[in-house]
Amino acid sequence: MAEGEPSCTEEGTEFSEFRCPGWSESQLRKYTFQTRPIPRLSHTDPRAEMLIDNEEPVVLTDTNLVYPALKWDTDFLQESIGDGDFSVYIAQTHKFLYYDEKKMANVENFTPKSRLYLQQTLNDTVGRKIVVDFLGFNWKWINKQQAKRNWGPLTSNLLLIGMEGNVTPAHYDEQQNFFAQIKGYKRCILFPPDQFECLYPFPVHHPCDRQSQVDFENPDYEKFPNFKHVVGYETVVGPGDVLYIPMYWWHHIESLLNGGITITVNFWYKGAPTPKRIEYPLKAHQKVAIMRNIEKMLGEALGEPQEVGPLLNMMVKGRYDQAFS
Amino acid sequence: MAEGEPSCTEEGTEFSEFRCPGWSESQLRKYTFQTRPIPRLSHTDPRAEMLIDNEEPVVLTDTNLVYPALKWDTDFLQESIGDGDFSVYIAQTHKFLYYDEKKMANVENFTPKSRLYLQQTLNDTVGRKIVVDFLGFNWKWINKQQAKRNWGPLTSNLLLIGMEGNVTPAHYDEQQNFFAQIKGYKRCILFPPDQFECLYPFPVHHPCDRQSQVDFENPDYEKFPNFKHVVGYETVVGPGDVLYIPMYWWHHIESLLNGGITITVNFWYKGAPTPKRIEYPLKAHQKVAIMRNIEKMLGEALGEPQEVGPLLNMMVKGRYDQAFS
Repeated sequence: MAEGEPSCTEEGTEFSEFRCPGWSESQLRKYTFQTRPIPRLSHTDPRAEMLIDNEEPVVLTDTNLVYPALKWDTDFLQESIGDGDFSVYIAQTHKFLYYDEKKMANVENFTPKSRLYLQQTLNDTVGRKIVVDFLGFNWKWINKQQAKRNWGPLTSNLLLIGMEGNVTPAHYDEQQNFFAQIKGYKRCILFPPDQFECLYPFPVHHPCDRQSQVDFENPDYEKFPNFKHVVGYETVVGPGDVLYIPMYWWHHIESLLNGGITITVNFWYKGAPTPKRIEYPLKAHQKVAIMRNIEKMLGEALGEPQEVGPLLNMMVKGRYDQAFS
Repeated sequence: MAEGEPSCTEEGTEFSEFRCPGWSESQLRKYTFQTRPIPRLSHTDPRAEMLIDNEEPVVLTDTNLVYPALKWDTDFLQESIGDGDFSVYIAQTHKFLYYDEKKMANVENFTPKSRLYLQQTLNDTVGRKIVVDFLGFNWKWINKQQAKRNWGPLTSNLLLIGMEGNVTPAHYDEQQNFFAQIKGYKRCILFPPDQFECLYPFPVHHPCDRQSQVDFENPDYEKFPNFKHVVGYETVVGPGDVLYIPMYWWHHIESLLNGGITITVNFWYKGAPTPKRIEYPLKAHQKVAIMRNIEKMLGEALGEPQEVGPLLNMMVKGRYDQAFS
């Protein structure tokens, strides 16, 4: 987003009805890189449909996707969510770096880093009141989106309740995502899959697979020189907004500073089946999928994930890392 | 081989009957790296069988494998070889860098570098006199070797007629090889498959696939730093000697300086089938096979061999080329 206060009029004239944001620039953390705004459009705008068709991000301002949930707050959820077990993540800092517990054996001395982030899948273990609201979501609209793009099944709805200032560092998912904001404001910075080289994801067998290794607040340009070239797309979503996060797109998400708690529900869908006829040149996300497969296959073939790095280095050094005549 | 003149007595007492070499140290080109001698043994020596079982090189001095061919010389071959077409390779220097014509489209401006090297597969197109000698080879011994190690079929016998001083630069083959010397002397320097990192083979899709990129006479240590750590095994084979070159072992071969023409016949066999139960840790040659498969698969998946390098670099840089915590 451009420097300075967000402008109501500019945004209004370009994309949607006049709307004054419920937040200010001072609530955003400061980073080194440039960004451009993600379009904010009505779900009835044909440009919105084109963006989703092209797997490009867009904020839809009027889907009513989670309308019945807009009344949710901590008191309501506390009494309605039921007495199941919930995953509450704790971080020593504001950053909630995700890690895959199954992959922790692959890395020596991996000790995850106290702040709270409740992440709960909406399913039949939640209370009746929440189920009623859930059934009142705009399934008609979202099912149509899913069908139109030939996406696979809805895999989960994740309810996220975060403290102000919480950050989920940049990562990509292997699913399509409608990110429906319910309470509070979240800043979402997205990067397209072709910026893989700028974002340096952890190795596939590392617990932090799919997460960028780069610390956005203190980038190590020695280790990650291409991070200098990263350019993001950003937006701040508030109650009622739905952000489409395309599969394989990187996303960094922060609950605004001094903005109170935030509540979001994710709608994750499996992507469309791979086309029978592969078209060249491949798209960036297809190359990412190829790299993931190579890393997985090597781990299998070598028997030990720790051997993937040495073999890749042996394959590349002096062979592929310089020009040939 | 150690510095100084080859010693008849040392060699004689260690491995075989006293035999004074028909060549001198001055006929060997000078290189930067160290080597150890390849054992010279009788084919009846159990140590020879153990070396072949372990896929380690050995010179067998008394197999009589190509006994009927020991009378071959250029005059005899010229009148006996028949009037088929023969591949005579021409190099601008003494070095005969092999290149795969099918892969020349993968590299821009690839122009191969005049000296002569006749390479002819022994088959039914050759003259009757040669066929008679060929049938008199010691098939009994070599068929037994093949059966004992569960090797696949004999794929070809290549007759090599080279000029003195010719060099075939270091490369590896994906087949087992009995290298039977007929006329003149050849120096053979071998390196085990675990020295892949020191020898920097061209990319798989390059016409010079399986060849080292390193110029042994003028190594570029900037590009190929690990070549400083290469250590070879060497021998000089003369008429009647048979060198076992194990599959995936690197070999540099030079017809001695001022030694006249050389004649050799190769016996190439497919390797034994891969074992049903893979044992870990993998052997170096299995890792080489894995790397070849990865490079081939990537060429297929990306549609363009030229894209393999950029993708491998993207996968490795900042992700696998430094330590993780």
